[in-house]
Amino acid sequence: MFYHVKELQYNAKPNKPDAVYAKKLQEILGGQFGEISVMMQYLFQGWNCRGEKKYRDMLLDIGTEEIAHVEMISTMIAQLLDQAPAREQEQAAQNPVLNSAMGGNSDVQDQIVKTVLSGMSPQHMIVSGLGAQPVDSVGYPWNSRYMIASGNLLADFRANLNAESQGRLQVARLYEMTTDNGVRDMLSFLLARDTMHQNQWMAAIEELEQNQKPIVPSTFPQELEKQEVSYSFMNFSAGEDSKTGRWANGKSMDGQASFEYVAQPEAMGQTPELTPAPPYVHGTPPTAGQAQAQYEQEAIQSH
Amino acid sequence: MFYHVKELQYNAKPNKPDAVYAKKLQEILGGQFGEISVMMQYLFQGWNCRGEKKYRDMLLDIGTEEIAHVEMISTMIAQLLDQAPAREQEQAAQNPVLNSAMGGNSDVQDQIVKTVLSGMSPQHMIVSGLGAQPVDSVGYPWNSRYMIASGNLLADFRANLNAESQGRLQVARLYEMTTDNGVRDMLSFLLARDTMHQNQWMAAIEELEQNQKPIVPSTFPQELEKQEVSYSFMNFSAGEDSKTGRWANGKSMDGQASFEYVAQPEAMGQTPELTPAPPYVHGTPPTAGQAQAQYEQEAIQSH
Amino acid sequence: MFYHVKELQYNAKPNKPDAVYAKKLQEILGGQFGEISVMMQYLFQGWNCRGEKKYRDMLLDIGTEEIAHVEMISTMIAQLLDQAPAREQEQAAQNPVLNSAMGGNSDVQDQIVKTVLSGMSPQHMIVSGLGAQPVDSVGYPWNSRYMIASGNLLADFRANLNAESQGRLQVARLYEMTTDNGVRDMLSFLLARDTMHQNQWMAAIEELEQNQKPIVPSTFPQELEKQEVSYSFMNFSAGEDSKTGRWANGKSMDGQASFEYVAQPEAMGQTPELTPAPPYVHGTPPTAGQAQAQYEQEAIQSH
Amino acid sequence: MFYHVKELQYNAKPNKPDAVYAKKLQEILGGQFGEISVMMQYLFQGWNCRGEKKYRDMLLDIGTEEIAHVEMISTMIAQLLDQAPAREQEQAAQNPVLNSAMGGNSDVQDQIVKTVLSGMSPQHMIVSGLGAQPVDSVGYPWNSRYMIASGNLLADFRANLNAESQGRLQVARLYEMTTDNGVRDMLSFLLARDTMHQNQWMAAIEELEQNQKPIVPSTFPQELEKQEVSYSFMNFSAGEDSKTGRWANGKSMDGQASFEYVAQPEAMGQTPELTPAPPYVHGTPPTAGQAQAQYEQEAIQSH
Amino acid sequence: MFYHVKELQYNAKPNKPDAVYAKKLQEILGGQFGEISVMMQYLFQGWNCRGEKKYRDMLLDIGTEEIAHVEMISTMIAQLLDQAPAREQEQAAQNPVLNSAMGGNSDVQDQIVKTVLSGMSPQHMIVSGLGAQPVDSVGYPWNSRYMIASGNLLADFRANLNAESQGRLQVARLYEMTTDNGVRDMLSFLLARDTMHQNQWMAAIEELEQNQKPIVPSTFPQELEKQEVSYSFMNFSAGEDSKTGRWANGKSMDGQASFEYVAQPEAMGQTPELTPAPPYVHGTPPTAGQAQAQYEQEAIQSH
Amino acid sequence: MFYHVKELQYNAKPNKPDAVYAKKLQEILGGQFGEISVMMQYLFQGWNCRGEKKYRDMLLDIGTEEIAHVEMISTMIAQLLDQAPAREQEQAAQNPVLNSAMGGNSDVQDQIVKTVLSGMSPQHMIVSGLGAQPVDSVGYPWNSRYMIASGNLLADFRANLNAESQGRLQVARLYEMTTDNGVRDMLSFLLARDTMHQNQWMAAIEELEQNQKPIVPSTFPQELEKQEVSYSFMNFSAGEDSKTGRWANGKSMDGQASFEYVAQPEAMGQTPELTPAPPYVHGTPPTAGQAQAQYEQEAIQSH
Repeated sequence: MFYHVKELQYNAKPNKPDAVYAKKLQEILGGQFGEISVMMQYLFQGWNCRGEKKYRDMLLDIGTEEIAHVEMISTMIAQLLDQAPAREQEQAAQNPVLNSAMGGNSDVQDQIVKTVLSGMSPQHMIVSGLGAQPVDSVGYPWNSRYMIASGNLLADFRANLNAESQGRLQVARLYEMTTDNGVRDMLSFLLARDTMHQNQWMAAIEELEQNQKPIVPSTFPQELEKQEVSYSFMNFSAGEDSKTGRWANGKSMDGQASFEYVAQPEAMGQTPELTPAPPYVHGTPPTAGQAQAQYEQEAIQSH
Repeated sequence: MFYHVKELQYNAKPNKPDAVYAKKLQEILGGQFGEISVMMQYLFQGWNCRGEKKYRDMLLDIGTEEIAHVEMISTMIAQLLDQAPAREQEQAAQNPVLNSAMGGNSDVQDQIVKTVLSGMSPQHMIVSGLGAQPVDSVGYPWNSRYMIASGNLLADFRANLNAESQGRLQVARLYEMTTDNGVRDMLSFLLARDTMHQNQWMAAIEELEQNQKPIVPSTFPQELEKQEVSYSFMNFSAGEDSKTGRWANGKSMDGQASFEYVAQPEAMGQTPELTPAPPYVHGTPPTAGQAQAQYEQEAIQSH
Repeated sequence: MFYHVKELQYNAKPNKPDAVYAKKLQEILGGQFGEISVMMQYLFQGWNCRGEKKYRDMLLDIGTEEIAHVEMISTMIAQLLDQAPAREQEQAAQNPVLNSAMGGNSDVQDQIVKTVLSGMSPQHMIVSGLGAQPVDSVGYPWNSRYMIASGNLLADFRANLNAESQGRLQVARLYEMTTDNGVRDMLSFLLARDTMHQNQWMAAIEELEQNQKPIVPSTFPQELEKQEVSYSFMNFSAGEDSKTGRWANGKSMDGQASFEYVAQPEAMGQTPELTPAPPYVHGTPPTAGQAQAQYEQEAIQSH
Repeated sequence: MFYHVKELQYNAKPNKPDAVYAKKLQEILGGQFGEISVMMQYLFQGWNCRGEKKYRDMLLDIGTEEIAHVEMISTMIAQLLDQAPAREQEQAAQNPVLNSAMGGNSDVQDQIVKTVLSGMSPQHMIVSGLGAQPVDSVGYPWNSRYMIASGNLLADFRANLNAESQGRLQVARLYEMTTDNGVRDMLSFLLARDTMHQNQWMAAIEELEQNQKPIVPSTFPQELEKQEVSYSFMNFSAGEDSKTGRWANGKSMDGQASFEYVAQPEAMGQTPELTPAPPYVHGTPPTAGQAQAQYEQEAIQSH
Repeated sequence: MFYHVKELQYNAKPNKPDAVYAKKLQEILGGQFGEISVMMQYLFQGWNCRGEKKYRDMLLDIGTEEIAHVEMISTMIAQLLDQAPAREQEQAAQNPVLNSAMGGNSDVQDQIVKTVLSGMSPQHMIVSGLGAQPVDSVGYPWNSRYMIASGNLLADFRANLNAESQGRLQVARLYEMTTDNGVRDMLSFLLARDTMHQNQWMAAIEELEQNQKPIVPSTFPQELEKQEVSYSFMNFSAGEDSKTGRWANGKSMDGQASFEYVAQPEAMGQTPELTPAPPYVHGTPPTAGQAQAQYEQEAIQSH
Repeated sequence: MFYHVKELQYNAKPNKPDAVYAKKLQEILGGQFGEISVMMQYLFQGWNCRGEKKYRDMLLDIGTEEIAHVEMISTMIAQLLDQAPAREQEQAAQNPVLNSAMGGNSDVQDQIVKTVLSGMSPQHMIVSGLGAQPVDSVGYPWNSRYMIASGNLLADFRANLNAESQGRLQVARLYEMTTDNGVRDMLSFLLARDTMHQNQWMAAIEELEQNQKPIVPSTFPQELEKQEVSYSFMNFSAGEDSKTGRWANGKSMDGQASFEYVAQPEAMGQTPELTPAPPYVHGTPPTAGQAQAQYEQEAIQSH
């Protein structure tokens, strides 16, 4: 069960409104690697956790923190949308926020309003009425196929490390895309937490790998896999630039074998030939005359 | 540019049809972590690669291999669907495949056909006419938000390691869900390649981390982040089971600091208060009588 | 900011596993009117709230409660999936839960396992490894277009009343679809909370309507709408059964006029005629010979 | 069955083209609360109606009217797109519509064309060739999870009242976002119809509530719900601003009890503990050495 | 504008309920090539039509007919769902429809109910309460990316011919999947209309092609395309089975040239090399030490 | 199985970066009729092909070519994004590409950067870091419901002809939307290949139609369809403009009959009346008092 306190985990106050940036900031709220994704991913991993208690507890710790991040970014977006204009004309002149920002120059105002109107999300006006939305920076809604809770913690902690890596990368880019000190202050907090969270998942992975083999799932008997191709790098793209990488040289990372470079991989399987479908499927009919007659006969009989 | 050869990379031949299993196998074809996902992910990472040539080459090697995996699984599914029944009645009796499989016992046949009809995907009959579909095991279509190509290879290699971990986990589960030796033979090949591919991404990550700090993006100046919370584990869920993990003890994984456990994290931010929206937004109107009148007045003036 | 406690808001313990029912129960977790929808809807309405403080506070109260409902249902689903079978053969016999449930009768076991396998979600095995998923009862992922936070509380409270009405209806149906006392106990709690929540939104609507006209948005000047059709019921379907309803008789609900029944509504608008597109659009070309030549001439000039 | 007449229900003629506004207007055509949503919602509620004839008739009346609204807005959008530019250069100068609109000033023309190109939807040129699309203002396609037909008319009429409330709110905002008299004329008609439709659903709800209890579904025996929490407002967010609302004071809206304010709600449920998954699920393996060996043994036996 | 009459275009009465078949029939209602798709496709093509009046009129004729098809199939599905069971136990015995269908044999009843419960859509009970849904046979919602209205009628009539071909194919398969005479009667009507509609689009295409070249868009000057590859079939898959087809032999279908078979197609383009991204993008950092230092220096300067 | 060579099929080199056009070009990469769609459509049709070998071979030829088109367009987009700006301020001045393009005029620079920032996709910066994405021009992800492989080649070749028609139309429009010679060079290649591919599918259709009737599926016995409406054009839209088309006059295209024009089509079906749902469905309750009591009684008994 959950409780809420009114204060934000960290400040979320822009220096001034910026409806165009509000749209961009949506990416880390409702995008593929936004805060809703990690919130839902950690909570579901925690609720579904069948492993040791400390993992469930840790997952619910961080999942609960992420709700607070969703709250911070939503609050920031709502403020960035303050006083956003609806149309070009007189409103700009009458709008005290825009007015003071532009020193009363109406030509500049007009131009700025036009730019805002073409760059902001129309849904921030029409749908949410100057509120944050659970969508990304192109307006695509968050959906739960963005997250994973597989029941295997080593697999999932890798998903989490990835999510925090993509997430911090996007926050860093958004930091570069503004010069508003208030926005940057909030982002500097998120960057720091993502530093912790990347560290956290690396630590949790290290801990799990001390108890199991690093190939997920570690419990599948390796003798049941086709082991002759378990350590072969196959060169399917002409040229051998890929030959010099660590993945093609030396001991495999699981310590079981050495990497092999297959310069000219050959097909090992059959040439597929599918049988015709039964008449009731109405697939492509046979082409030669007689077969066709018989086929249609069968088809009629089946009705 | 690409070329195709007719042989499959490895055999994909079931011992006998099984339309219900065909539906389940769709998961690793068109699901979130199916072969279409890794095929598209590696190809786009390769095509967009602005890093060293060997990474682009390696990505296109493995991306090209994955197209062959999509081909193998599609071929397998089509064969599992051979002679699938359309309806309960007479067709079963007339169906030689089902007939021989059931020793001519028509009661058993009826029951088996019923089970097949309730467990197979209706779209395998109605839409694809006994062919594989680019969808998952519940019929949800593949979509490109399943993949990522971020322009930062360390971030993306972590995405790749995750994809291969989730993918091999799903293949292992599907191996458990059948006893057909032909299907298991193909899956044993995919399991082996996923063993290689997990090794491959671990190797590539190790190589990249020798040249950059492990926190993505390594190029963002860490002094710009809120460093007092960069190594703190925050305990937002009552109870301290999470205190004993590696993530709360010892040196941080990036070697920059030591982990700290914050047993009772406090809010550090403001209590949000949003300003009312301008009249033209038609948000919630003010409640006190006079303010309301003035508000409506402004609204009328703006038309 | 949020805190979590380990106990559930109410018990969520099934009497025995039931993987088929687990799939059905997904509807009120990740469906259009499931708990994720109301959780997200109330939280975003609260975070975006520009109205009186008590509304923001109330929205965050109920939004926070709904996270706990998501937690309860997820926990229930995970337990309903306990020991779910992966395939028909020997596993059933070796499975103590199934075994005791079936009195050791292996024929009955086989049949039950078959039914479970055809009726459960394949993703509960392959993707989530016996965990709850943020999807509905047909496996479709939750997405944020299920919710609304419009910035106008009267509009949104109507959305909320609808969500709680659809939600309680679905819970009631799911109650009918099981006889498991443990499941029914949890559902009886959710039914009661939905009773409260329908009451709550009716109360909040009543309160708002004491301060504003009941037509949303109340702030749009009604003299700017085409008032001659503001109270007319138009009969576009042959027959006049619809004439006897309250919507066609008596005073309008906003008290501004009386309902009117238009038995034979007539078109009031123009017959549309669109102009041809410019050549660079490559729309349908003009059909007469000469016009075509000129059109192609223009097209060439533009390159 | 349906018939069409060529005239629109009401005029849909803009004063002049405006490709940027055309994109915004898409919201009330193909958005979550656009005309396609209500058209489909009312038609499906009517076709599925198992209640009194007058409800079916009324639903098909209004559903049929909504097809005409889809037609009007589509026609309007196509005209707003007339002569939209494809690229910056010479086309603007050669475009008589743009030319006259700008008094032949080519610098102004260039700037206006640039603004149009950055603000219009690229799909209005590339995909629909200056035609309306069944998408919203950010280009997201309409999908049928936007609508509901639950088989319970009281629930559905609340959905309908919500849809008309959100819909009229969006139309009002779009009215504010243009000064084109032709567009505003059409919107004034839609605003009036939405006034009627909000009245209509309020009337229909009132009528239904005279025959049944207002808590949906009224047919579920209330003694089967956990009645001790049926009228309690629970304060999960610190602070008691929410205490003063109607929802926490006085008689409940269904007249069955009085509202209660629970200032410090306590958890009433168990602390969840999930059992480990069977080996064939390949969940997180047990951590202690011996259990692990046994677990792997079981796993091998099952193959 | 539209009018509705109460009678269906053709009878839609099943002989008896069949909830499992109801789910399958959803495919031609809300699937990719279901009736909602053609209804919306034709209506939007009509409303957006900038060509001759007769095309607009014809498109609205057939679009209006398709609304009636949606109505027929919805009505059929609702009846197929009559008396569908909610759970296994006592309800079956108490259900007169099931009871008479099974001759009072309770064992058979139990088995039949189980099969129905595992094969029907859970949403037909939980969400729509025994009503049709605008979804396909796996429960995926209809969305408007299923349709096209491109502004070029020749392109669109080909889309229409395709839609009617896929549609009739699916109806034919569904005809094979039932033996209910009432269902088959309705399908026989739809099959006939689809015969007409395939004829209709072939006729309309023939007519258009008498006025324009058959390559869409006919208005693009062919001298601007890379004409040396305009008639070459390229053999990218090993083996030359494809050499014997009409597409590789004889005069091209547009009458402009002869087909050419390129047995060994060669790449004609550059080997791509992308430049590194600017520091503010935080892409993969350069690997050599010095470049890295400079790169980070630039990055710091930009903040 | 597949192999890759490093050279592109044809050159993909823009003259200069243009981040706004990069967004538009996404349409033919990841849009409904983009290259990913035809790539996947042809490959799946080939892999599922149960017809003559030459069709499978031909489908895999063209499917393999299409992967190369995806590669070309991706490469082009990445280059169009070179040096795209992140924010308005100083970066433009420091950006040598932008700088030289604008002759060092900082006012012009500022304006150009603003236009780029409002017109480019924010995800090209935040998500893909200046790389191509598998999405369309409004950022909507590619999904596999865009393609079809039905198991009936005549149906599918019509889908293919449609895809190549819509595709070439979109390429032609994009050609008009730029004046960059490098981009136009690549598009001129795609236009030529689409010319071939439209020819190819017309040829393949002609070949198939020599062996089967042109109404898909040709194998369904036409005597089982309702033949009295198989050749009737029905005039559901007032006015008879549609009477003069080929579809209403002369021999039907399948040569089986003559077209008939039905000026005033009449309904041939029943007026639907649905029976009430059982109590456990909790649909709309009966309205008369007594029936209601009985209904609730039944409902209670079932618990």
